[in-house]
Amino acid sequence: MTDCSALIAKLEALGLGDAPIEHVAAENVEQWAEVLAGASGVPPGHALTKTLIFKPKQPKSEPVAPVMVVIRSDTNASSKAIGQALGLKDLRLANEDVLSEIFQTSRGSGKYATGGRLSPFALGNVAPDHLANVRVVLDKALLGDSARRIAFHPLTNTRTVFVDAACLRAFVASVAGLKQVVELDFDAAPEAAAPAAAAKAKKPAAAEEDAAADEATGSARLGIEASKDKDFAKWYRQVILRSEMLDNYSVSGCYILRPTSYFVWEEIQKFLDAGIRAMGVRNCYFPMFVAERDLNKEKDHIEGFAPEVAWVTRAGSSEMAAPIAIRPTSETVMYPYYANWIRSWRDLPLRLNQWNSVVRWEFKNPQPFLRTREFLWQEGHCAYLTRDEAWRETLDILALYRRVYEELLAVPVVEGVKSEKEKFAGGVATTTVEGFIPATGRGIQAGTSHYLGQNFSKMFDIVVEDPDPTKPKIHAHQTSWGLSTRAIGVMVMTHSDDKGLLLPPRVAETQVIIVPSGLGSKNTPEEHKRVADTCLAVEARLRRVGVRAASDLRDGYTPGFKFSHWELRGVPLRLEIGPRDLEKQSVLSVRRDTFEKAPLPLDGLETAVELMLHRIQDELLIRARATMKDRIKTVMCWDDFVPTLNRKCIAQIPWCEREECEEQIKARSTRDALQDEPEDEKEPSMGAKSLCLPLQQPQDHPIVPGQTKCIQCGQDAKRYALFGRSY
Amino acid sequence: MTDCSALIAKLEALGLGDAPIEHVAAENVEQWAEVLAGASGVPPGHALTKTLIFKPKQPKSEPVAPVMVVIRSDTNASSKAIGQALGLKDLRLANEDVLSEIFQTSRGSGKYATGGRLSPFALGNVAPDHLANVRVVLDKALLGDSARRIAFHPLTNTRTVFVDAACLRAFVASVAGLKQVVELDFDAAPEAAAPAAAAKAKKPAAAEEDAAADEATGSARLGIEASKDKDFAKWYRQVILRSEMLDNYSVSGCYILRPTSYFVWEEIQKFLDAGIRAMGVRNCYFPMFVAERDLNKEKDHIEGFAPEVAWVTRAGSSEMAAPIAIRPTSETVMYPYYANWIRSWRDLPLRLNQWNSVVRWEFKNPQPFLRTREFLWQEGHCAYLTRDEAWRETLDILALYRRVYEELLAVPVVEGVKSEKEKFAGGVATTTVEGFIPATGRGIQAGTSHYLGQNFSKMFDIVVEDPDPTKPKIHAHQTSWGLSTRAIGVMVMTHSDDKGLLLPPRVAETQVIIVPSGLGSKNTPEEHKRVADTCLAVEARLRRVGVRAASDLRDGYTPGFKFSHWELRGVPLRLEIGPRDLEKQSVLSVRRDTFEKAPLPLDGLETAVELMLHRIQDELLIRARATMKDRIKTVMCWDDFVPTLNRKCIAQIPWCEREECEEQIKARSTRDALQDEPEDEKEPSMGAKSLCLPLQQPQDHPIVPGQTKCIQCGQDAKRYALFGRSY
Repeated sequence: MTDCSALIAKLEALGLGDAPIEHVAAENVEQWAEVLAGASGVPPGHALTKTLIFKPKQPKSEPVAPVMVVIRSDTNASSKAIGQALGLKDLRLANEDVLSEIFQTSRGSGKYATGGRLSPFALGNVAPDHLANVRVVLDKALLGDSARRIAFHPLTNTRTVFVDAACLRAFVASVAGLKQVVELDFDAAPEAAAPAAAAKAKKPAAAEEDAAADEATGSARLGIEASKDKDFAKWYRQVILRSEMLDNYSVSGCYILRPTSYFVWEEIQKFLDAGIRAMGVRNCYFPMFVAERDLNKEKDHIEGFAPEVAWVTRAGSSEMAAPIAIRPTSETVMYPYYANWIRSWRDLPLRLNQWNSVVRWEFKNPQPFLRTREFLWQEGHCAYLTRDEAWRETLDILALYRRVYEELLAVPVVEGVKSEKEKFAGGVATTTVEGFIPATGRGIQAGTSHYLGQNFSKMFDIVVEDPDPTKPKIHAHQTSWGLSTRAIGVMVMTHSDDKGLLLPPRVAETQVIIVPSGLGSKNTPEEHKRVADTCLAVEARLRRVGVRAASDLRDGYTPGFKFSHWELRGVPLRLEIGPRDLEKQSVLSVRRDTFEKAPLPLDGLETAVELMLHRIQDELLIRARATMKDRIKTVMCWDDFVPTLNRKCIAQIPWCEREECEEQIKARSTRDALQDEPEDEKEPSMGAKSLCLPLQQPQDHPIVPGQTKCIQCGQDAKRYALFGRSY
Repeated sequence: MTDCSALIAKLEALGLGDAPIEHVAAENVEQWAEVLAGASGVPPGHALTKTLIFKPKQPKSEPVAPVMVVIRSDTNASSKAIGQALGLKDLRLANEDVLSEIFQTSRGSGKYATGGRLSPFALGNVAPDHLANVRVVLDKALLGDSARRIAFHPLTNTRTVFVDAACLRAFVASVAGLKQVVELDFDAAPEAAAPAAAAKAKKPAAAEEDAAADEATGSARLGIEASKDKDFAKWYRQVILRSEMLDNYSVSGCYILRPTSYFVWEEIQKFLDAGIRAMGVRNCYFPMFVAERDLNKEKDHIEGFAPEVAWVTRAGSSEMAAPIAIRPTSETVMYPYYANWIRSWRDLPLRLNQWNSVVRWEFKNPQPFLRTREFLWQEGHCAYLTRDEAWRETLDILALYRRVYEELLAVPVVEGVKSEKEKFAGGVATTTVEGFIPATGRGIQAGTSHYLGQNFSKMFDIVVEDPDPTKPKIHAHQTSWGLSTRAIGVMVMTHSDDKGLLLPPRVAETQVIIVPSGLGSKNTPEEHKRVADTCLAVEARLRRVGVRAASDLRDGYTPGFKFSHWELRGVPLRLEIGPRDLEKQSVLSVRRDTFEKAPLPLDGLETAVELMLHRIQDELLIRARATMKDRIKTVMCWDDFVPTLNRKCIAQIPWCEREECEEQIKARSTRDALQDEPEDEKEPSMGAKSLCLPLQQPQDHPIVPGQTKCIQCGQDAKRYALFGRSY
C-alpha cells in the first residue's frame, strides 16, 4: 500500500484547507457515512464519492486504456453515457489486475471502490508511460457547488480528506500527460431519463457495482468466471450470487438468504432440533429487544458486545425515552427471567433453546454467511444444579455441532477449547468446533458451546437452596451454545469449485436433476414425448422413495445449457435420459463432485440413486477430511511457523497457553510474514491467532511436562494448540 | 370516570405552575415516558411516579384500611418497609374492588397503576367517612428536590400534570381527615440493602406489579382466581402467566413465549409449512432491516405503517448516517429484489415465504399474543403472470388458514373479504378468517390473505414481456399473506376455563399426564414402586405410538396438587393409576375439557387413549362452533343492532358496503351504546366495525338486488356483512 503522506503534502500545496480525518476502516459507502457521522471536524453537507475504473473492449495486444470515473457515491455511473461522451464502445468495469498493476491499489479496491482505497489521487501512482492511456471522467454535479467539500479516501480507507471543486480540478490538472479529462453530467445521461431503466437503477446500492459487473459480462454471468485458486474472494461471491444461494441487500452487511441456502438451514434446523430435543431441551422465544439496564448487567460480557450493538431510539415519529438494544446474543435477555423462574432446586435443570436472528453491527468488512450484521442461529441456554452436569452438556452439544458439520455438510471440524483470549466474553470456558478453508489456509470458528460457570448466575441472582437445607445456597451452573448460518458459508467454501456450487446431497433442495438429452430436430414428436414422459416417471419413482428429484423439461434450452445451469446450482447428481438410453432401458448418471459418468439400469433405479447419493455424501467428507489432515502441520520450532502458514496450513504447536504469549505470536507472525515472504496481493498475510486446544491431543508426540517447551516463548508447554490465520 | 377539571382547578389554587399536557393514552410507564418524550412543554428532569394501593390483612367484617403509596415509577414499593413504617402486617396490593369502590378509579388502574389513572388526586374521590381509614405514604426521594417537577396522571391516562414537592405536600394536606401521612425513604428500606433481595427487585419493571400481586397471593398463585365470565381481562392474564404459556418482559409490549406456547407455534408451523410447500412455495429469509427509501416507496402502504415503525439510529457509539427501519411487514423489503429476479415470464410464478418476526410499535394497550410490539408470523409473497392465478392462491391460502384454526386449534372461523376501510394498506382486496371470542362477544381478525393486484408491481417495477411478443409488457399480479402468534391467544380465549389453560390435543406438548394416586402411608414400598413402574410402562407404551405422554412421579406432592398443576397447564387427558386400578388392570382417565371420568383397561390402552384424544379434539371444535353459530345473529333493522352487540353477539346485516356508511355505523353504535345501555366497567362498550363480508352468504334470507336495504343508511344492500366489536 502506498503511503499517503506525500499525497497529502501535494494536496496541501494545491490549497487543501481541511485536515484529514483518521478513522476506522470503511469498506463500503454505508460504513463510510456512518464513520464520518460519528467523527468530529467533518465539514457539513460534504459529498461522498466513489471512484471506478472502466475499460473499453480492446485486443489483448494493445495497452490497457483505463477510464477513471469520479462520481457521487449514490449515482449510477452509466457505462453507456461514459462511452458516448468518450467515443468508446463496450465499456465495462476493469478487473482487479488493472487496479493493482496500473493504479497500485490493493485488494478490495475493485468492485468495492465505493468505500475502498481507490480515489483520483491514485493517478499519482500511475507510471508516466501509462498516463497517456488514461482518461478521467469527473461527475459535473460534484463540481457545481464551489463551497461544498468532496470526500475521498486518499489511498487508505482509514482516512478521509475533504477537498473543494477547485482543488479536485487542480489536482487532476497537475497530473501531466493524461489522455483526456471530461466533466460529465450524469443526471442527464440517457438511462436516467427512461423510466423503466431508472427504476432498475434504483436497485439497492450495495448490489450496484456487482450488478454492473454482472451486466457488463452479459451472458457470461450464467457461469463462474473467477477461479477458486487464483481469486478466492471473487470466486466465492460469484458462486453464492450466481447459484442463487444469496443476494446482496440494500442495508450494508445484510444479505438475502434465497431458497437454496435457506433449505440448507432448514435441514440443519431439523437435525439439530431433533438432537437437542432428545437431550431434553425445549424451544421458546424471547423478544429481540433488550432494555439498556439489562444489557449492561454483566460487565465483561457487555464490554465484548457493546461496540456492535444496534440501538432503537425512535418509534413512528416519537423519540423513545430510553434507547432499546437489539439482542447481539440473549444471555442478558433471558437470565433475569431465569432468576424469577428458578426458585428451588426442583426447577433445575432449566433447558431452553431458541431459533432466532441476532444483530451485531460490525464495522469489519462483511462476508456473506461468515460475517453479517444480522444472522440466523440457535442459542441454547441451560442452568444446572451442578458443575458436572453443565460441563457434560457443554461437550454433548459440541459433539452434536460436529455431527451437523460432518454428517450434513460433509465438512470436517476439530473439537477443541478456546484460549483465554478467544473465549466467550463473560464465560468460564468456550469449547469450539473449528473448520478450515483449504483455498485460503485459514481457520474458521464453526460453532461454540460455552460453560458459563456461575458468572452469570451470580450477576443475575439465579440461586436455589441446596437440597440439603444445612448447606449454603447454590448459584446455578450455566451453559450457552450457538450455531449459525455461518455453517453454510463454510460448506460452500469447502466443496464448491470453478463450475459453481456443490451441495452435499443431505442438504440439497434438489438432489437429482433429470434432463432429457440426445434429442434433435430429427427425432419425432413421439420420441420427444416418450423421453419427457420417462423423465417424469423417473422423477415420480424417486420422489416416492424420498429422493428430492426434479425434471428440467424447459423448451428452448439445450441440454448443455441445462447441465451448466444445474451444475452452477450445486445439484449433486444429474440423470440424462435420451432415446438411446430408453432403448437400453437405462439412464446416464453424472456426479457433480467428480463428473464421473455411469449408466444406471431403469430397473432398480431407486436403490442405485440412493446408493450414489450416499456415496457422494460420504466421499465429500472423506476428501475434505484428508485435505484438512494434510494441512494441519505439527510445528516444533518458531522458524517453521510462518512458512507453514504461508503454505496455507494450520500450525499445531506445543504451547504455554499464556495470553501474553498469544499476543506475541500474533505480532511476531505478522511481522515475520511481512519481512520474509512476498506478499500475496489477494490474500494479504496476517497474524496467526489460536484456533483451539484440540480435545484430541496428538498421540505421536505427547507433551512431556517440564520438558516440552512453547515454540514461541520457550516456557513450559501445557498442550498442543492449533494456530492459524483465520476468518 | 371522574372528570378532572375540578381537580385541575384545585391544583391551580394550590400553586400548580405548569399547564397539563394532553396526550394519547399511556397504559404503562414505558408508554408514558415515550409519550412525554415526544410532547412539548414537558419540564426537563421531571420524575415519573406510580401510585399503588396496599391493604393489610384484616377480618372481612372490618372496614377496608387502604394505604396509598406514591413513589418513583422505577422504585420497588417494598411492602415490608411500608408495613414496618406504619406498624401494619401482611400488606399486599389491594384488588380492583378497593380501587373502584373507594377511589372511584376505573379498569386498568389496579395492577397497571404505574401508567394508569390512579394518582394521589384520587383522594379527592374518597367519601369523607372512608378517609379516616386511609393512610398515605410519600416517597421521600420525590420530595427532596424542590425544583423538580413530579408527573402524575390526574385520573386520566391521557393527561399529565407536573407539580412540585410543595404542591404535592399541600394537596395531601388539603385532604381533611386522613388517618396518617408518612414520608418514607425507600432507598434505605431493608430489602434494598440485602444483595439477594435487591437483585430480585431488579426484576423487569413491566412484570413487577404482577409479580408483587402473585407473591402477595402466596400459594393461591398456583391456580386461577379470576373468573372468565366476570373479569375476562384478568382471567386471561392469569391463565397465560400461571400456565407458563407466557411471561411479561421488561420492554413494554413484548412478551416471552415459554415452551408451552412455543410448542403450539411449532405445531402450527409444521402444518402450515407442509401445506404451502405442497403448493409450491419455497422458504427464504430477508433481512429485518429496511432502508428508509425502500420503506417509503409505496405511499398508501407506508401511510398505514409509518406511525408504528421502530427506527435504528445508532450502532455501538456512532450515530448512523441514515436511520434504518425494522420491518413491520416485508413488502417493501422484498419487492425491489423481485424486480431484479423477475426478468421474463419464465421467472413467474415466484413464490416465497418466510418465518420471521416483525415489529409494530403500537401505542394502543398491548395484549399478550393479540397485540404485541414484536410478534412471530409467516409472510408469503407471490408474484404471478395472471390475475386468476394470484386470486386462486389468495383463496387457497385462506382455506389453509381456516384449517390451521379448525383442525389444529379447534377454533371455528368465518372466511370472508374485508371492507375497503379494513383492507390491507396498498392492496386491492384482503380476504380474512375471522374468529370470535364468546366471553367478550368480540370478533378478532385471525389471519389475512391479500390480493395485491398490480399496485406494488407497478411501484417496484416487477414487469415482464408478454409471452406473446406483440403484446405490451405485463406487471406481475401479487399476493401476500400472513398468520401470526395471535392464533395462540384466540385458542386460549376460546377453550380455557376457570381451572386454567385447556389445550387441544394436537397442539399440546404433553397430551397425557400420568399421575399415581390412591397411595398412602399404609401402602408398602413395593406397592408404591409397582404403581410408579406401571406409570412409566404406560408412558412408554403411549410414546411408542406417538402419544406425547409424561408421568408425574414427584415426591412430596399430593395427587390433588398434581391434578390442579396439570389442569392449570392445559394437559388434555389425565390418567390416574393406583393400587386398585392395578388390581382391575385398568387406569382412570379424566378429560380436561369435561372432567368426565372413565376407566380404561390396560389391555389396548394405546388405542383407547388415541381415540379419546381425537374425541376431545373434535368435541372442542364442535362446541366452539355451536357457540359461534348461536352468537352470529342476522339483524334486519338498526334498532336491534346495538342490543345484539350488547348481548355479546356479532350482527350479520344487509349492507351497502360504502366506507362512509361503515364510519356512520361505528359512530352511531358507539353513541347508542353509551346512551341506551348501562356501561360494563370491565368491557366498556365500543363502536362496531365490519369484520368481513362472509364468502358463504346466508342462504335463508338472500339479498334481493334493489329491494334489500342496508339497515343503517337505507341504500341498496349488496351483501351481508358481519359487524361487531372487535380486538
